[in-house]
Amino acid sequence: MNKTIELLENHRSVRKFKDVALTDNQIKTIVEAAQMASTSSFIQAYTIIGITDKEKKKELAALAGGQEYVAESGHLFLFCADLYRHAQIGKIKDADVLPSIESTEKFMVGVIDASLAAQNAAIAAESMGLGICYIGGIRNNLPEVNKLIDAPDYVVPLFGLTVGVPDQETATKPRMPFEMIYHENKYEKDPAQLEDKLNKYDQGISAYYHERTKGARSDQWSEQMAKMLERKSRLYMKDYIEEKKLNRH
Amino acid sequence: MNKTIELLENHRSVRKFKDVALTDNQIKTIVEAAQMASTSSFIQAYTIIGITDKEKKKELAALAGGQEYVAESGHLFLFCADLYRHAQIGKIKDADVLPSIESTEKFMVGVIDASLAAQNAAIAAESMGLGICYIGGIRNNLPEVNKLIDAPDYVVPLFGLTVGVPDQETATKPRMPFEMIYHENKYEKDPAQLEDKLNKYDQGISAYYHERTKGARSDQWSEQMAKMLERKSRLYMKDYIEEKKLNRH
Repeated sequence: MNKTIELLENHRSVRKFKDVALTDNQIKTIVEAAQMASTSSFIQAYTIIGITDKEKKKELAALAGGQEYVAESGHLFLFCADLYRHAQIGKIKDADVLPSIESTEKFMVGVIDASLAAQNAAIAAESMGLGICYIGGIRNNLPEVNKLIDAPDYVVPLFGLTVGVPDQETATKPRMPFEMIYHENKYEKDPAQLEDKLNKYDQGISAYYHERTKGARSDQWSEQMAKMLERKSRLYMKDYIEEKKLNRH
Repeated sequence: MNKTIELLENHRSVRKFKDVALTDNQIKTIVEAAQMASTSSFIQAYTIIGITDKEKKKELAALAGGQEYVAESGHLFLFCADLYRHAQIGKIKDADVLPSIESTEKFMVGVIDASLAAQNAAIAAESMGLGICYIGGIRNNLPEVNKLIDAPDYVVPLFGLTVGVPDQETATKPRMPFEMIYHENKYEKDPAQLEDKLNKYDQGISAYYHERTKGARSDQWSEQMAKMLERKSRLYMKDYIEEKKLNRH
């Protein structure tokens, strides 16, 4: 196994950081690595906002659900799907680009582009010995996040990426077995087989929590998922994204 | 600069492969690296379909716009946003999960999760000396792609990833300048400044094509984008994804 694969396999989220800010050089290296990810038809439909303003960082930490480590990391990046530049190009070139830009297809392109770039950023940071955590919590309240960064139409913040010098030891978390995530030639959907696989995975996850918490927790994955999905959270999303003129038709 | 960052910075898409199939071991390593990417609240809302059936591969290559290298690569992965397992968990646990699963928020989670995993897969493959190309072309005709892999409701194929032993030398493509993609604390949207930056980037891209094609091409990025976005492609997407019971409300 080569060093890069070893790095990928050793990913764990870090939620406690030393009080050390990233250098400009580190930020530039991370962003430039992000930019080299593949992008659909060279569209580059995303923007990265770096938050250095301490007040803004604190507000974002509060908006993301009061997660202190968001404010106390070495750097906070916000990844946005972005077709604003392309809308401006339409004006400059007098080209009818809005029907395309406002489509679900192009919204997906923005989300995919931003995510591929973010994962490159995460890996670049980890390869430098830094820790990372994705912050989906900013989607709790996108209108407020948007106001903080003053993003125009055609731009939607998707998630944060908090990066810094790790101040905790964490362990990797066991993913679904290979055969659950990877199917050959066709989608394996048989409900009885799936239930069987879920049961086995649940036992493994339960044992993992039991061991890590010395018996205090023994949740199963299915149980966690059922509880989380019963909460009807962020149901404002569809309307909000349409308001920002994406995912409209 | 460490080896991993060097790898990230040297990414280029490969569209011609030697006739060498990936080994089971390579496939397993790539998928397991993909799985270790971050996933929103541990939801793991994606599935990877590996296409080994030669007829299916050819059909997918045709559906993706007649790109031969899709059929002739060492392996073709399809990345799908997937909340089918979670819908089944809802049935098993008698939990009311569908309002959540069918939301735009959870569709975004599926797209982000699949993309983070895919980028890990791409990097793992490149670190093994393999070449990769993302195949967004499968979105030309998702109903047909879906039929080929027999995917149920709550599953949407997003893109392919074709991987193999490279049989061409390609060059990296110059991304937008750092200051266009990375903004500090707030989104820089001033149209005049943006136009100025676009002009400079256009000159750079134009020179890049001119040099690489010995004068045959000299397109600017803005021009490329305007032309591409004037084509109203894949506008069936919103209805189709709603049919698959995602991105509904």
